[in-house]
Amino acid sequence: MPNLAAVMPEFGTIEVRDVPLSEPTGRDVVVNVKAVGVCGSDTAYYTVGYIGDWVVDGPIILGHETAGQVVAIGPDVESIAVGDRVAIEPGTPCRDCEDCLAGRYHLCADLEFLATPPYDGALVQNLVIDERNLFVIPDSMSYEAAALCEPLSVGIWACRRAGLQPGDRVRVTGAGPVGILAAQVARALGAADVVVSDISDFRLGIAADLGFQTEKAGEVEPGPGHEDADVLLECSGAPDALATGLWRLRNGGRAAMVGLPKQDVSLPLSRLNVKEITLSLVNRYAHTWPTAIALVASGRVDVGPLVTHRFALEETADALTLASRIPDSMKAIILPNG
Amino acid sequence: MPNLAAVMPEFGTIEVRDVPLSEPTGRDVVVNVKAVGVCGSDTAYYTVGYIGDWVVDGPIILGHETAGQVVAIGPDVESIAVGDRVAIEPGTPCRDCEDCLAGRYHLCADLEFLATPPYDGALVQNLVIDERNLFVIPDSMSYEAAALCEPLSVGIWACRRAGLQPGDRVRVTGAGPVGILAAQVARALGAADVVVSDISDFRLGIAADLGFQTEKAGEVEPGPGHEDADVLLECSGAPDALATGLWRLRNGGRAAMVGLPKQDVSLPLSRLNVKEITLSLVNRYAHTWPTAIALVASGRVDVGPLVTHRFALEETADALTLASRIPDSMKAIILPNG
Amino acid sequence: MPNLAAVMPEFGTIEVRDVPLSEPTGRDVVVNVKAVGVCGSDTAYYTVGYIGDWVVDGPIILGHETAGQVVAIGPDVESIAVGDRVAIEPGTPCRDCEDCLAGRYHLCADLEFLATPPYDGALVQNLVIDERNLFVIPDSMSYEAAALCEPLSVGIWACRRAGLQPGDRVRVTGAGPVGILAAQVARALGAADVVVSDISDFRLGIAADLGFQTEKAGEVEPGPGHEDADVLLECSGAPDALATGLWRLRNGGRAAMVGLPKQDVSLPLSRLNVKEITLSLVNRYAHTWPTAIALVASGRVDVGPLVTHRFALEETADALTLASRIPDSMKAIILPNG
Amino acid sequence: MPNLAAVMPEFGTIEVRDVPLSEPTGRDVVVNVKAVGVCGSDTAYYTVGYIGDWVVDGPIILGHETAGQVVAIGPDVESIAVGDRVAIEPGTPCRDCEDCLAGRYHLCADLEFLATPPYDGALVQNLVIDERNLFVIPDSMSYEAAALCEPLSVGIWACRRAGLQPGDRVRVTGAGPVGILAAQVARALGAADVVVSDISDFRLGIAADLGFQTEKAGEVEPGPGHEDADVLLECSGAPDALATGLWRLRNGGRAAMVGLPKQDVSLPLSRLNVKEITLSLVNRYAHTWPTAIALVASGRVDVGPLVTHRFALEETADALTLASRIPDSMKAIILPNG
Repeated sequence: MPNLAAVMPEFGTIEVRDVPLSEPTGRDVVVNVKAVGVCGSDTAYYTVGYIGDWVVDGPIILGHETAGQVVAIGPDVESIAVGDRVAIEPGTPCRDCEDCLAGRYHLCADLEFLATPPYDGALVQNLVIDERNLFVIPDSMSYEAAALCEPLSVGIWACRRAGLQPGDRVRVTGAGPVGILAAQVARALGAADVVVSDISDFRLGIAADLGFQTEKAGEVEPGPGHEDADVLLECSGAPDALATGLWRLRNGGRAAMVGLPKQDVSLPLSRLNVKEITLSLVNRYAHTWPTAIALVASGRVDVGPLVTHRFALEETADALTLASRIPDSMKAIILPNG
Repeated sequence: MPNLAAVMPEFGTIEVRDVPLSEPTGRDVVVNVKAVGVCGSDTAYYTVGYIGDWVVDGPIILGHETAGQVVAIGPDVESIAVGDRVAIEPGTPCRDCEDCLAGRYHLCADLEFLATPPYDGALVQNLVIDERNLFVIPDSMSYEAAALCEPLSVGIWACRRAGLQPGDRVRVTGAGPVGILAAQVARALGAADVVVSDISDFRLGIAADLGFQTEKAGEVEPGPGHEDADVLLECSGAPDALATGLWRLRNGGRAAMVGLPKQDVSLPLSRLNVKEITLSLVNRYAHTWPTAIALVASGRVDVGPLVTHRFALEETADALTLASRIPDSMKAIILPNG
Repeated sequence: MPNLAAVMPEFGTIEVRDVPLSEPTGRDVVVNVKAVGVCGSDTAYYTVGYIGDWVVDGPIILGHETAGQVVAIGPDVESIAVGDRVAIEPGTPCRDCEDCLAGRYHLCADLEFLATPPYDGALVQNLVIDERNLFVIPDSMSYEAAALCEPLSVGIWACRRAGLQPGDRVRVTGAGPVGILAAQVARALGAADVVVSDISDFRLGIAADLGFQTEKAGEVEPGPGHEDADVLLECSGAPDALATGLWRLRNGGRAAMVGLPKQDVSLPLSRLNVKEITLSLVNRYAHTWPTAIALVASGRVDVGPLVTHRFALEETADALTLASRIPDSMKAIILPNG
Repeated sequence: MPNLAAVMPEFGTIEVRDVPLSEPTGRDVVVNVKAVGVCGSDTAYYTVGYIGDWVVDGPIILGHETAGQVVAIGPDVESIAVGDRVAIEPGTPCRDCEDCLAGRYHLCADLEFLATPPYDGALVQNLVIDERNLFVIPDSMSYEAAALCEPLSVGIWACRRAGLQPGDRVRVTGAGPVGILAAQVARALGAADVVVSDISDFRLGIAADLGFQTEKAGEVEPGPGHEDADVLLECSGAPDALATGLWRLRNGGRAAMVGLPKQDVSLPLSRLNVKEITLSLVNRYAHTWPTAIALVASGRVDVGPLVTHRFALEETADALTLASRIPDSMKAIILPNG
């Protein structure tokens, strides 16, 4: 039986190939991949071949938002059984360094992360991965929802990095998938109110349908006089979004920067210091999957409205370019097993 | 126009009397009281005349869970207008001591608290209170729900004292009004799952109807081997409940003690220390009303199932003895203006 | 008996004048001012007439780092007696707003702060101030040391804002008075090691004499590869110091920005995010005087080496321009009572 | 060359035997043991054969406070070289479980800890241990001081568990080695003042010599009216010490329980709750060695006054019974290599 994968031999090209699949050893597990969400990072690797210091310099399989069903387990696997439906955490830390033991394994220098060069990702029919990356999902949760526990984890971690407290007034800038999920997380963690801003009416519409207040980005000039938020979750990566958002923070405000602008960011820190703002940078997440699954399974977060398009494995290139081809889109899901 | 109040001349007696109502001065406001929840402390003052070191030694008006509509304002009032529908925070701190300035005004030695001797409470048709104790509620929120923002605040603060984090597995012991509200708060703040235990099948039924897992108190012997919670919210005040609940905590577990047992508590601390448990005592709340209103207004907390009985002001004595007369009851609401 | 003050009628001019001194009322106290430290903000008001949005638009008395002896008390004073030797906290909050009650009175919108327009400062022989701004010092502490509890408070608060933990490796950029004090505080709070950098060999020499490792600013190019600190305390205000310092932080590093650059700050946040840095802005301090006094009184912080020059009240203009006239200087102290 | 060890074949007996010493493999290192501090747990295993659930049921080598010099390294050792002088952390976690990855490896269910049954300890001339348990000490630090980094770590962790903040007023109950070290740590981390209490005048004398205020235990009756501490570090294990100490805490006070009483502890929690005390249990420490070494190396903590008696390996039984034989003693050090 073949094991088809969407291989990117070099950036800009996708070829569906049969790739080897060996018996799992040690604590490895074979997961039949049911759904893979397309992330902006996948699109960047496909269209320009790099993200910051990570450069594609050989064939790679993309995709790291994923879920599936376990079809084989290695001899030392303890916590997972064949047949289990699982969400997959894409990063595997060394479990040995100072960062790992300090509780921040996501910053491990030796982290192996799906679809981050040189490591292959999940756009394959069967994926081999350590059992410790797997989290069993309830029967009621779809594979698509389980795959989206990955961007949802970004939202959870952003709220944690921002020190979100119950009752906080939250502003989310950027209504893409991560922004929409971060907004839902903020609400699910007790935020008093959540305002979502973006330049896209399509995306603001999805935010409004989910019950959020919305604001067209750019309507309020950056500067003092409009402080209405305790927490800012910057999820757009737009060059001026962080500075603009920081102006909206109240005294003691906390900001988490999730979106990554392409250039250096200029900030009026000497004017913002009177408010004693705290700005936290965000690099993925740690310890979030159980929370993500609980929030989705209980309905406190609804990932359904994010999925606007679905693709077969052969249509991977179309999926990777969805955002530029169809601006009124949100999240593409690829179904490697049809 | 009379201003009727349910006065307790001495414990065990309630008389409805017309009490003076003067024009509001300074930042004081007159609130037409629409709903007053009966708390266990009201019942204790009525039945035995004291709670710990607080002793009733003169006529007093009970009731501190309350909401109403503003009918007059003092000359210096800035934030409140006649006609506003408001939830009322019952404690007024000095705003001058070390505790107040440190952010814990609820521990102010000079706190004046409704229905705590020698201060009168809210079982009156019109209540005079400082505008800073008032929080405007949205039109969609009932006065009963607004009154229950007080016990809800206890639940919010218990979660905060316990250091509740998203994804925590939470055990609530005691399914009375505070326990049910604390459980709902834990869920609304991102708890992964919440188990409620009690000895009353009636109360466990209400918990189950609200979607919680339930456990009959006493079914699991205290001792090691059943650790399944990250957070314990002890809301029963039963003598052994705290020790029993602490055994259920996992490594790094955190407990908040809300219920107040009548005697000293014996705890196996030398055996629990291997888990590095943190135990936080709880004394009411601070800074919670905006959060409480947001959680109720958005439907994330449902106070409706708590209200099992309603009473007119003349029936105050019946309301105060409801729990002992009708075990299958939960929360009594008194309607001073009918 | 005259009450001489160094009045600045307009920026660039100082005149010693006799100013009125009335009997203290309420909780006010009259302090005979023994020592006033000159801060960079005093110098800025004197040389250019403004700092950011604070503009001098009338006669003002400068000086906010101060200590003295109580010579008279108002009728409602409770905690202070005539003869007390006191350090003075220069900010008086409203004690009524959300910020004050939340424990961050230093961000109070109505804060009245010595020598911040339009409020007069401490360059006067006798200062009237609320008793709650006073902290009695032990006999062993000099008035100069007590006056320097103000910049020391900046250092304490910077460490708190940076979330300094015992064992942290700390980098302090800028070896002016605040930098030297912040470095001493970091060591006094358990930092494993503290490195101080500056461009001035004179200032690095003072840091070295106090036992700190030193590094000439600019010796290490900004960029990855030199991460050696858990905490950055940026105390120079130099335009590039923050970015340069952030590169030196390790994973999970925390930075507090104390120095205020004159322009917007450009930061490579997208490259720093892999380390999940937290950047905290700093606006003075809160709740720090007892700590400052304890650290100085016990010898854990030594403010002595900071004081390089002393001036009489008539020499105030010289004191205010010391830094530009004599680069190899540190802190000027003015002695209003000779 | 023999490798002598003080073996305890069964409780109450010590025999010096030659034990096998193999070549180190993997990341193991051979340390020539220079100093071993005697802990109360060693004494308990020797005199009664158990501590709580840990029971000696076969020959065991005691001793876990230790330091030495590296004499051989395994083939995979990266961070340690022959000749290194090292302090030794006695616990080896699995580095794989939820607790390890959450940053609390000290609570790992599979922790292997020196001298805790069934694992042998350090009373041997040459000890084989993983390099990750070793911390290189500066030349200026003695091996005795390095060995005492273990009880010092308990003090560091107690302060961390108590949430010690700069400026806190600290009460330490119990002036044994851990209490004295905890008091020194509290001071080294910025405590405003530290009071040490005990029943032993000898031990209070050592505390006084180190500059602490002292108080004879029992002089103040438990009960309200004497609140003078923000933090309690209970290090005595005396049955009533915790309750007595909790009464001394002020509003918002935090207590860490380090001493382990033999019975359950009875606490007046319903009366203490008005102060909103937080009580944290303590189980050893995590991540503390770098801090311990820095505090000792810089002179901020002085372990010298603790060492009152020294013993050769053959005198191990005398060392283990020192406390009962000579009440005016503090810490026994055993020198396995003479």
